[in-house]
Amino acid sequence: IKPSVDLTLYVLTDDVYLNEEKFWRVVEDCLKNGVTAFQYRAKGKKGAEMYREGLRLKELCAKYGVSFFVNDRLDLGIALNADGLHLGQEDLPLEVARKHFPGKIIGLSATNYEEGVLGIKAGADYLGLGPIFPTPTKEDAAPPCGVEVIQKLKEEFPNTSVIAIGGIDQEKVSEIIRAGADGIAVISAVFGAENPARAVYELRETIVKAKE
Amino acid sequence: IKPSVDLTLYVLTDDVYLNEEKFWRVVEDCLKNGVTAFQYRAKGKKGAEMYREGLRLKELCAKYGVSFFVNDRLDLGIALNADGLHLGQEDLPLEVARKHFPGKIIGLSATNYEEGVLGIKAGADYLGLGPIFPTPTKEDAAPPCGVEVIQKLKEEFPNTSVIAIGGIDQEKVSEIIRAGADGIAVISAVFGAENPARAVYELRETIVKAKE
Ligand code: NI
Repeated sequence: IKPSVDLTLYVLTDDVYLNEEKFWRVVEDCLKNGVTAFQYRAKGKKGAEMYREGLRLKELCAKYGVSFFVNDRLDLGIALNADGLHLGQEDLPLEVARKHFPGKIIGLSATNYEEGVLGIKAGADYLGLGPIFPTPTKEDAAPPCGVEVIQKLKEEFPNTSVIAIGGIDQEKVSEIIRAGADGIAVISAVFGAENPARAVYELRETIVKAKE
Repeated sequence: IKPSVDLTLYVLTDDVYLNEEKFWRVVEDCLKNGVTAFQYRAKGKKGAEMYREGLRLKELCAKYGVSFFVNDRLDLGIALNADGLHLGQEDLPLEVARKHFPGKIIGLSATNYEEGVLGIKAGADYLGLGPIFPTPTKEDAAPPCGVEVIQKLKEEFPNTSVIAIGGIDQEKVSEIIRAGADGIAVISAVFGAENPARAVYELRETIVKAKE
């Protein structure tokens, strides 16, 4: 039996936007204002630094009762005893990660309906689905799949969580949640916000209202 | 009790030199001509590709009775049930890797005497020590430590294997082995050779003679 996790407002770390001091301040802003899960991502960093930063984030999450995920690196997930692991389409195969990370939540990125179905059939506990809408600033992004895909996947596979990701701002949240998404995953909407604490608070409020 | 491994002629993979077809031909040349251990390295590749390539290399190594190591990625080492793991100074901490990879060989990179001693005290099974000699083509390399460091470390810590690495060619092998090194680790001396099979065969012969 897996621990129940709340993926309603899932924040992925990105330190591109901020210096280190500011980064950790925003993390605490997130934890105090309604984030329900964190995913530690650190593309291009070495293992020692990832371990140090991941440990710090995990301990902060534990303090606030927030779930802690690791992106891509199964070894970091194991070493930090994370609540779960998020895998991209080109990361280690899900069944391999599952074997060595039993009892944990494993999520998979999907950009469209077909990848979503394959991911669910491969045993993903949740999908990080996106982009849902066009993402004009991200040139390498997949084409947007639209909110209909959320609806379709949730109708066919009600037991798998679907978390929408990709260029989600305040205005799009209601539409996503009403389409049936279990939550939203954000990066720049928080780390790129002028007032991250307020941004988190408002995202959470909008989700709660849309779920009513 | 750990499996006994022979690190006499330790080849690190590098596919910068070769296309894929040629790469796998050289791997077989190595296995047939006296390589005793392989380390799978794939900087910048994604997990899925690393898993596929690593699995192929591991199976080839098993066929020839050659030890199989993974560089940096503890998760890949676990997933492939490798014989061991090689960690750089900035990778996951050795004690963390040890905890989740029991009974396996774990080696550590060291560029000088001090790093070597710290690595041995941290519990490394072997050191990848280097560069021993100046490496004019590699601008980011540490300063050469000289063969005296091999001698000193082996005198003080005879139970830890020392493998010399960094710009080692045929001519330097004898001096390194006579200084007490347990083996040599090579990349370009094999993958960059005009005739890799012959290069491997000659390196092995030189090592064997120097050890007599
Ligand atoms: Ni384990």
